[in-house]
Amino acid sequence: MQLTVLGCHAATPRTLANPTSQTLEIKGHLFLIDCGEGTQVQLRKSKLKFSRIKHIFISHLHGDHFFGLPGLVSTFRLLGREKELHVYGPKGIKEAITMLLKLGDSWTNYPLYFHELTSKESTVVFEDDKVKVSTIPLNHRIYTNGFLFQEKEAERKLNIEAVASYEIDKCYYQKIKNGKDIILDSGAIVPNKELTFNPPKPKSYAFCSDTVFEPSIVPIIKGVDALYHEATFLDSEAELATKTKHSTAKQAATIAKQANVGALVLGHYSTRYKSTNLFKQEAEEVFTPVLLGEDGKAFDF
Amino acid sequence: MQLTVLGCHAATPRTLANPTSQTLEIKGHLFLIDCGEGTQVQLRKSKLKFSRIKHIFISHLHGDHFFGLPGLVSTFRLLGREKELHVYGPKGIKEAITMLLKLGDSWTNYPLYFHELTSKESTVVFEDDKVKVSTIPLNHRIYTNGFLFQEKEAERKLNIEAVASYEIDKCYYQKIKNGKDIILDSGAIVPNKELTFNPPKPKSYAFCSDTVFEPSIVPIIKGVDALYHEATFLDSEAELATKTKHSTAKQAATIAKQANVGALVLGHYSTRYKSTNLFKQEAEEVFTPVLLGEDGKAFDF
Repeated sequence: MQLTVLGCHAATPRTLANPTSQTLEIKGHLFLIDCGEGTQVQLRKSKLKFSRIKHIFISHLHGDHFFGLPGLVSTFRLLGREKELHVYGPKGIKEAITMLLKLGDSWTNYPLYFHELTSKESTVVFEDDKVKVSTIPLNHRIYTNGFLFQEKEAERKLNIEAVASYEIDKCYYQKIKNGKDIILDSGAIVPNKELTFNPPKPKSYAFCSDTVFEPSIVPIIKGVDALYHEATFLDSEAELATKTKHSTAKQAATIAKQANVGALVLGHYSTRYKSTNLFKQEAEEVFTPVLLGEDGKAFDF
Repeated sequence: MQLTVLGCHAATPRTLANPTSQTLEIKGHLFLIDCGEGTQVQLRKSKLKFSRIKHIFISHLHGDHFFGLPGLVSTFRLLGREKELHVYGPKGIKEAITMLLKLGDSWTNYPLYFHELTSKESTVVFEDDKVKVSTIPLNHRIYTNGFLFQEKEAERKLNIEAVASYEIDKCYYQKIKNGKDIILDSGAIVPNKELTFNPPKPKSYAFCSDTVFEPSIVPIIKGVDALYHEATFLDSEAELATKTKHSTAKQAATIAKQANVGALVLGHYSTRYKSTNLFKQEAEEVFTPVLLGEDGKAFDF
């Protein structure tokens, strides 16, 4: 599972500070999460193939999280895309993108589907045989969701030596990988755990931006391998954080600790601070490991 | 008069190829012309002050000419802008920007005025005592205007030595600068040309993008000091240019020649060509001087 942070700065795009966008490579998918202005250029810099993106998840409709989307949707058309594109985001996103394309008389020549979100409960928005994506209801100035990406339990790994020693026919392999015991011709039962190894533990990633300190999300993100949590401010601006419905680094770390996550990735930094290391230092007083999100940086989990 | 090309490439934003946007510094104004995605970052790179922009002219509603506008309008708010902002562009632009701001519950706290254009004739859209801006009706796939920026005739320059020699009182100076003759106490008339120097010739700039080869614009842009004309293709792709309602470098140069302009600036290059020098070479066979638009490059006229 690889997270690539394309942009992780709050508010306005600057020369070296891109607004929120990231990709998650998970079980063959390349999911795009949020799409601030400049996402296309950041994708190119990270050498991520546009054609691999089939699902885009938008947390909320503040410009720094989706003003790059109209351009990306248009670029897909110019690149001759034929594959479906699915966009998940708050109600209103369909009308906005549709209107912008209509104004330019530039409708897409590929199928574009909008999945508009309105629920205030955690909801499954995408699922296939390998991955499940659910919303994480956040608490911001406007309707906002984080997203939880969960790998599904993989099939068990065949113990080649063991199945060979029992002379089990290949046609039973899939059954064994699915966890079934085997009855030999002799009538003896070979328990599945003798024939297989445990599969790797399914991985999970939670994206939480933007939100005020909101402990009600803890049960949803419990035990994820990696949590991206916004940290717009430091504790010294805790009051401003509450007022603008953002979090401090300390609060992000508190959520990480309560949810017992594998690692915390910080981002959505306000440009008022001299160094992002200040966010890391503050968070590490509560939780470790803390990783600093950085535009263009990839993290493997 | 200084033109700063912020972006001059066709279609999709790339690492080193920004979509259309430019500023024109003229008589104390800093006009922004078109606003493709990434314009904010390009403005910062060129160290142009955001607060100086009070008028934005949008040629047409294709994404590569205005998808940077919602973000710029939002950024002005975040920067605490209080001054008026005027946006001139095709009908529909108001609804689009308004809707995007409304979705984010982020209305501006400064006065934002839209001047929607629908006329197919050249129309004055802005005028003060120093500058006049008119539309140049272009011929593209959707309703499109270029813009003509004209300095007004400045007042005449006082010949200090001459007015001193006639012992003319200072209270007549403004009258003299306005071109009036002076009657001395003796009754003698001193013609204005004895008391003044000619003011500098008013400058003018024409922005023409996007358009198919359209000689009907020639009378409107006749004799401008600088013409920016799109040159999406080379002559080898003339058929494609006509089909997509774009121009070739040769056609841009033909317009420049027919209008007898001071200089031709090229831009809106398709990314299919290896070098922009090819555009210059082709145009120079018809007209000189030809200047190559380049992201971040400033031209003084």
